[in-house]
Amino acid sequence: MLRAAICGGSGYTGAELLRILSAHTAIEITAVTSEKSAGMSPADLFPQLHRYAHLKFEPLLKEKLLEKADVFFMALPHGASQEAVAHFHGKGKKVVDLSADYRLGDPAVYESWYKTKHTERAALMQAVYGLPEIYRNEIKSATLVANPGCYPTSAILGLAPLLREGMVSPEGIKVDSKSGTTGAGRKADVSLSFCEVNEGFKAYGLCVHRHTPEIEQEFSAAAGVEVTIDFTPHLLPIDRGILSTMYARHTGKGGLEKIHGTLKKAYEKEPFVHVHDIGAYPNVKHVRGSNECHIGCALNERTGTVIVVSAIDNLVKGASGQAVQNMNLMCGFDETAALTGISLCP
Amino acid sequence: MLRAAICGGSGYTGAELLRILSAHTAIEITAVTSEKSAGMSPADLFPQLHRYAHLKFEPLLKEKLLEKADVFFMALPHGASQEAVAHFHGKGKKVVDLSADYRLGDPAVYESWYKTKHTERAALMQAVYGLPEIYRNEIKSATLVANPGCYPTSAILGLAPLLREGMVSPEGIKVDSKSGTTGAGRKADVSLSFCEVNEGFKAYGLCVHRHTPEIEQEFSAAAGVEVTIDFTPHLLPIDRGILSTMYARHTGKGGLEKIHGTLKKAYEKEPFVHVHDIGAYPNVKHVRGSNECHIGCALNERTGTVIVVSAIDNLVKGASGQAVQNMNLMCGFDETAALTGISLCP
Amino acid sequence: MLRAAICGGSGYTGAELLRILSAHTAIEITAVTSEKSAGMSPADLFPQLHRYAHLKFEPLLKEKLLEKADVFFMALPHGASQEAVAHFHGKGKKVVDLSADYRLGDPAVYESWYKTKHTERAALMQAVYGLPEIYRNEIKSATLVANPGCYPTSAILGLAPLLREGMVSPEGIKVDSKSGTTGAGRKADVSLSFCEVNEGFKAYGLCVHRHTPEIEQEFSAAAGVEVTIDFTPHLLPIDRGILSTMYARHTGKGGLEKIHGTLKKAYEKEPFVHVHDIGAYPNVKHVRGSNECHIGCALNERTGTVIVVSAIDNLVKGASGQAVQNMNLMCGFDETAALTGISLCP
Amino acid sequence: MLRAAICGGSGYTGAELLRILSAHTAIEITAVTSEKSAGMSPADLFPQLHRYAHLKFEPLLKEKLLEKADVFFMALPHGASQEAVAHFHGKGKKVVDLSADYRLGDPAVYESWYKTKHTERAALMQAVYGLPEIYRNEIKSATLVANPGCYPTSAILGLAPLLREGMVSPEGIKVDSKSGTTGAGRKADVSLSFCEVNEGFKAYGLCVHRHTPEIEQEFSAAAGVEVTIDFTPHLLPIDRGILSTMYARHTGKGGLEKIHGTLKKAYEKEPFVHVHDIGAYPNVKHVRGSNECHIGCALNERTGTVIVVSAIDNLVKGASGQAVQNMNLMCGFDETAALTGISLCP
Repeated sequence: MLRAAICGGSGYTGAELLRILSAHTAIEITAVTSEKSAGMSPADLFPQLHRYAHLKFEPLLKEKLLEKADVFFMALPHGASQEAVAHFHGKGKKVVDLSADYRLGDPAVYESWYKTKHTERAALMQAVYGLPEIYRNEIKSATLVANPGCYPTSAILGLAPLLREGMVSPEGIKVDSKSGTTGAGRKADVSLSFCEVNEGFKAYGLCVHRHTPEIEQEFSAAAGVEVTIDFTPHLLPIDRGILSTMYARHTGKGGLEKIHGTLKKAYEKEPFVHVHDIGAYPNVKHVRGSNECHIGCALNERTGTVIVVSAIDNLVKGASGQAVQNMNLMCGFDETAALTGISLCP
Repeated sequence: MLRAAICGGSGYTGAELLRILSAHTAIEITAVTSEKSAGMSPADLFPQLHRYAHLKFEPLLKEKLLEKADVFFMALPHGASQEAVAHFHGKGKKVVDLSADYRLGDPAVYESWYKTKHTERAALMQAVYGLPEIYRNEIKSATLVANPGCYPTSAILGLAPLLREGMVSPEGIKVDSKSGTTGAGRKADVSLSFCEVNEGFKAYGLCVHRHTPEIEQEFSAAAGVEVTIDFTPHLLPIDRGILSTMYARHTGKGGLEKIHGTLKKAYEKEPFVHVHDIGAYPNVKHVRGSNECHIGCALNERTGTVIVVSAIDNLVKGASGQAVQNMNLMCGFDETAALTGISLCP
Repeated sequence: MLRAAICGGSGYTGAELLRILSAHTAIEITAVTSEKSAGMSPADLFPQLHRYAHLKFEPLLKEKLLEKADVFFMALPHGASQEAVAHFHGKGKKVVDLSADYRLGDPAVYESWYKTKHTERAALMQAVYGLPEIYRNEIKSATLVANPGCYPTSAILGLAPLLREGMVSPEGIKVDSKSGTTGAGRKADVSLSFCEVNEGFKAYGLCVHRHTPEIEQEFSAAAGVEVTIDFTPHLLPIDRGILSTMYARHTGKGGLEKIHGTLKKAYEKEPFVHVHDIGAYPNVKHVRGSNECHIGCALNERTGTVIVVSAIDNLVKGASGQAVQNMNLMCGFDETAALTGISLCP
Repeated sequence: MLRAAICGGSGYTGAELLRILSAHTAIEITAVTSEKSAGMSPADLFPQLHRYAHLKFEPLLKEKLLEKADVFFMALPHGASQEAVAHFHGKGKKVVDLSADYRLGDPAVYESWYKTKHTERAALMQAVYGLPEIYRNEIKSATLVANPGCYPTSAILGLAPLLREGMVSPEGIKVDSKSGTTGAGRKADVSLSFCEVNEGFKAYGLCVHRHTPEIEQEFSAAAGVEVTIDFTPHLLPIDRGILSTMYARHTGKGGLEKIHGTLKKAYEKEPFVHVHDIGAYPNVKHVRGSNECHIGCALNERTGTVIVVSAIDNLVKGASGQAVQNMNLMCGFDETAALTGISLCP
């Protein structure tokens, strides 16, 4: 049994790690931290986690935690994560960081979008971007994995194969994304209260959302040239799920069959990516609670636009599920361990 | 008192006309038609309409209806509307057609997208596209008004002023729209059942939705050149509301202030269009139940893209409310009669 | 034009008063107070209220407000309302108090349930319980009206006529009520956040909810004996609406026809109460946004239990709508002024 | 590996059996039947079940199915189930029947409530009521198990221990239940469409719901006397979940501690029943997707009423999960096999 700690465990991603890892036969959770809920149990905050009543939140005391766990899931706010991650990693622990701190390879880009200094450049250089469908081999040998953002996961899985194969132009890409409300985290905030969100729908963060450079980084890597995008997130009145509708100019290299074939081929051996048949499109409801990404594509012959639609559960493939997938790879477990459950639908 | 008939009154747009017109002091509803609910009352189908218990649905018998009403709201399915509209209009009645049959000026375009012959070309030539913010004067003197589609209303109100003033390029426009489920009508259909729609979100009709040519027609009129667009509708798990997020290339004529100013100026005297301050964006929740359209805009300086977001209630400004607004104009009533209610929020 | 002030206007009942009163042709709103939003406009908090952009929240300065308005809607928290209400009322103003402070005739009962002293006994003695269907005449001549609680309104309208006529026993009554989330007010509270409420349903406040003595007071008045009840409120994942399912022992005085007839007769002239036909039952959706109460009834012959189901919109008939109805009566306006809108459904 | 067939597999309980059994290491699904979807795959109807693309719905041909499976999950409509169940059972197969046909021990009661003849009395006499918390031993040796209804499961688990121990009176019990919409099944029906259900809440089936005699049968067994109840179901605008609020007269045998202790003791070794601490109550959201039942209790000292609140997921503990639990017991598997997943929340 490997011992795992969850740092920053009182939010939705923490609770989701506890849910998923309860099915992992090779992992034992030995510590969960939370400053403000210290002394309480996950069962106190989340009645569905009553089987974790024995576990108590503790403050993040680095020396103490070092003794308690072999692998660390870090679910701290960005900025706060930098030093804690570097510490555990520096002491030889395996770390999956769910914050944004180690996702952007270029610290200048990080500092410009997050308005925060990056003080752990050495650790940053060793971090691997944790999208297994692209970086599986690197993740297997990594000791520090930056778990991707939820929006970027949906966007990159949908469009990267087409950029890589030159099926779409890297210029003028639009990513129009819609996320369930768990994406905003668990907090007391009038704008996230039921009566404000329910029966509503809005765009937010236009032109300034911090997931933009993360998507651009991976689109650039796939295309082999610098890519700049328009990214618009929206808030859906549902608990879970991200659907991204993406528009890119067709380069003319083959028609819809070829585009669809490129996606099918890219993911034919992937356990968690499902490419729909031509004419079918994903629904966030069909991935709820699972680690899957569903993808559909279309070609508008009248305009020469390729449209890709992808869906994930933002708390699973977009956060905690992908973190477990990364941990499985880093630790030599079956990549799908604890992640084989079918979506809960309806 | 003017006498009004509602043809095809057993759906959501019919019920919404009854709701709205109950507040109209110059209109008396003298007939509602429905073939399949003939003999029943609107109160039987819609308990909230119990004050209409005296009214009974009747079959659409043209001669009989001619005697009963002065103005006709036609809420029949497309195709079925052509002849009935032409009939009442030909007999000198004022007609607001909520179907798609008289929206497209070019019958060849209609026939290509709707796969239906247009057999009433004479009437079609007299039809005015019923978007008062653009065609108010024409509507005032019209006797046949084609009430715009719900998606087109949201798209055109948002982008037409910028196209007209050359602030955005007519090429490469993307309209990414999200609609509440009333937009699909009232029917027994598993795919519209609560457990399929709730907690879900999906795109549909990619590249083939019939509101595409309607949006293109009005974008073309505004731009003065032929416009072709990408239009992707999505289904929201809410009752009412459309939010359209639109992407267009900035022409460089002035920055965000100028773009925003153009929208403000276009709508400064409009009773139903509200342009948000820079940095604020609409939410469908804030227009629910009202005839308003809310608009926000942004300029992505990194990409040169103008983004406009607009929100309407698809059953009000997107259907029955706009129909009443058009009728008010056609009949010389105050344009806002029966339409001054504030949105029901939360 | 009568001038109205809304004290405590930054919550949902305040916003709802602004929505409803915008349709009132004899009322001008001259002041809205809020300590924490002072200086802001209702339009800042509630984008749907943008036509109130000219109005600014001000602190509740009693002397200043006295000059500004003729009638006062008090939407302050209980306890805080006592003195402010007594002040304006003592200066000869007409006051509708939406708090709980003047609802319970016996201050000892108030103090026992609310754990707060009642320091305004003189004013309390003049307060009339504002349920027009029972106390219309008293309200007409009142200068201080205690607007009923939302749960009590639904319970009393449903069962009082049967208690009054002796159709049901006053012993052993159960009131099982379910309320939309606006009933909990507008506040930053994790337990009211979207992701906690959505797709959930729970009971709360078992045996201790403060609306219990209010229901008991009016049931007792109707029955002519002291009534004690079981009252269980539940939280519904919807914005608006209360549905109360009530169980009472049949006394045997006539069967279902007689029970139904008693309810029909009690409300035959009431503008806002609609009794369903036998076999039909209310749905909160059919009263959303309107001032109506819908009632259905059943008799379980196997058990001798009468079951009454009633539905209201908690923000309208359960709060702001009823407050306007009371104000209309107190001021000699048409009782239905500004309240004739049909429910927004779907 | 045991081979399992699902008869009537195209509804929500069928899909849920496929979801749950995908995690069962000792069960292989060898047949699923559906007359109207014959030839299609579960993956065609339910995109989340794409890993079942190899499986095709087939018509229910009894002889053919006999060869294909060792254990049968019957999810046919009541009435239709009688003969098919008796057939497979008569041929020596183990059968779990999810219909109502074998739940009521007295065929006269069945015939009176279901208005259908019961023609398989011999099989009926061998059927065991499949509530493991009460009939575990009988189930272990049974070959035909009648899987309980969803409402009865929630009601019986909540109140049976208190009836058994004489803590509450068997007279005058009220069961006020609220169910998510999957409880109504998967069908094309306007009254189940999103726009009719969403933001709504209503009671239905007052005094006549067919789960009434099933609850009464088990309450009677627990109390040792004939019990007659008032049962009112309601429709919640959520996908899954039943919450039952139950009112029973306190007999005076001990106070709240004793009542609570009785429930705790009854379930202390149960893997799927969780009794909340005094003062805490269940929420359907906390059992979504799991096989758990959560229970809370209160004692109203003013009225002498015991109130018990219980929550289950109607598709899991209320249907398919309990069916798998029963099958596990019948087949000698670990009772919790495939059922250990934590609720998906939010």
